[in-house]
Amino acid sequence: MSETPTWYHENFDSSGSAVGFRVSGRLHAEQSAFQSIEIWDTTDWGKLMVIDGAIMLTGRDNFLYHEMMAHPVLFTHSNPKRVVVIGGGDCGTLREVLRHREVESAVQVEIDERVTRLAEEYFPELCEANDDPRAELLFDDGIAYMRNAPAESLDVVIVDSTDPVGPAEGLFNEAFYASCLRALRNGGILVQQSESPLAHLGLIRSMRQHMRNAGFAHFRTMTFPQPCYPTGWWSCTMARKGADLSGFRERGAQSKPFATRYYSADIHRAAMALPEFVREALGD
Amino acid sequence: MSETPTWYHENFDSSGSAVGFRVSGRLHAEQSAFQSIEIWDTTDWGKLMVIDGAIMLTGRDNFLYHEMMAHPVLFTHSNPKRVVVIGGGDCGTLREVLRHREVESAVQVEIDERVTRLAEEYFPELCEANDDPRAELLFDDGIAYMRNAPAESLDVVIVDSTDPVGPAEGLFNEAFYASCLRALRNGGILVQQSESPLAHLGLIRSMRQHMRNAGFAHFRTMTFPQPCYPTGWWSCTMARKGADLSGFRERGAQSKPFATRYYSADIHRAAMALPEFVREALGD
Repeated sequence: MSETPTWYHENFDSSGSAVGFRVSGRLHAEQSAFQSIEIWDTTDWGKLMVIDGAIMLTGRDNFLYHEMMAHPVLFTHSNPKRVVVIGGGDCGTLREVLRHREVESAVQVEIDERVTRLAEEYFPELCEANDDPRAELLFDDGIAYMRNAPAESLDVVIVDSTDPVGPAEGLFNEAFYASCLRALRNGGILVQQSESPLAHLGLIRSMRQHMRNAGFAHFRTMTFPQPCYPTGWWSCTMARKGADLSGFRERGAQSKPFATRYYSADIHRAAMALPEFVREALGD
Repeated sequence: MSETPTWYHENFDSSGSAVGFRVSGRLHAEQSAFQSIEIWDTTDWGKLMVIDGAIMLTGRDNFLYHEMMAHPVLFTHSNPKRVVVIGGGDCGTLREVLRHREVESAVQVEIDERVTRLAEEYFPELCEANDDPRAELLFDDGIAYMRNAPAESLDVVIVDSTDPVGPAEGLFNEAFYASCLRALRNGGILVQQSESPLAHLGLIRSMRQHMRNAGFAHFRTMTFPQPCYPTGWWSCTMARKGADLSGFRERGAQSKPFATRYYSADIHRAAMALPEFVREALGD
């Protein structure tokens, strides 16, 4: 912490682009059972978490991602009572989910308990809802969890994972999506982070194809800014069981009883508009 | 060009964040009368132009910025005939402006002719409209140009400049905005690139205050992704003379007779939605 500020750069080989932050010191580093985890302090972006060399979140810009992984899907479902978050070990998505009063149960299934323990220590604001009686934190394999989930038992599944390599690879294939489809009730929605619209359009297409093969028929990809991820521009993709994804509860979003920093009914509607090159590539 | 690929990082001191690209070689470097200009080749992002150490554009992502600097303002004005671009030496904004048939005259006032000459050489696709008989390329001081422009002579002024330091500093103050207001016809619109909504919100506020002091009464800030700029998220701010900025020619945008890669009527409407924290900071 007494180090002279220097720059931490993450070079993304697959996109040929890089993102970085000015850091004032490394606060923690460990090799967990699953991955390497580092915590850095930055000069302008709060704390920084890095997993296997990939920047996961900063204290300053994570609200964009966490709000957009939680609120659009929850305001699209008519009455989301039972929610599962796969991954999401920093607990920021879980916190946003629990802002919705309709939610009766929110289970977070993170494979690596160390991510959550470090979030509790270095990002306590993201963990402030962990004691909510509706929340359950499991440290387990999300793929197995969804395979074993009772049929027709869930309203929303949020896949808040790392990139589709390493521990998260099995979250991007047909078998996993088939488990999700089976576990969702009618009208239930799966939403998954789907990388950069500019750098990873092929992945979004392939995710949708795997979801389609698994039996989902309706899809929607939404984009949002996320400075700490490759290209600074990110997306999530929804797939729905037994209903389309044409609208959302606009009045509910307009009169939501909690504050947000990015999300609003206007932003929700805006995020439904796809850039021309994305629309053409996805055939939407 | 035979160099081993390496990484070009731009560290933004003011934001404490960095953006970079994998480069395969430096194609050109010079010190013009105004600034240093470099051209690099990248592995995945086409050519890269760097001015005074700041990444200006890549061949792959400039369509986002150029489309959003041109089409929203031109589809907001009811009949934009006379357009001036201040800066914009790479000619990409000018090309987008000239796609609009209503435009009878588009004058680009770039202070540094070398930027345009290098764009012609390394980004020829951006310069493909430079021979349009409606286009005029001047290499002159945009501040003086606007000061001397006849009153009530213009419909749209697009300020496509570098950051508010160095040659571009004088494009962000009340005196410049007063020149623009005077030169605009009634209903005329000034639009200016206004940096990152996340990192430079104070600048956007200060720009609006200077515009207000100069006599503009209606403002609109729009955001869009721009991977090669700090935080990967950028904005433009419009100010209008004698009319508000509540709507745009939606049917015109829907039936536009030219192709775009980012912009559409849906994207235009979407870009009008401000994130909660921006809306609050700007009092919109």
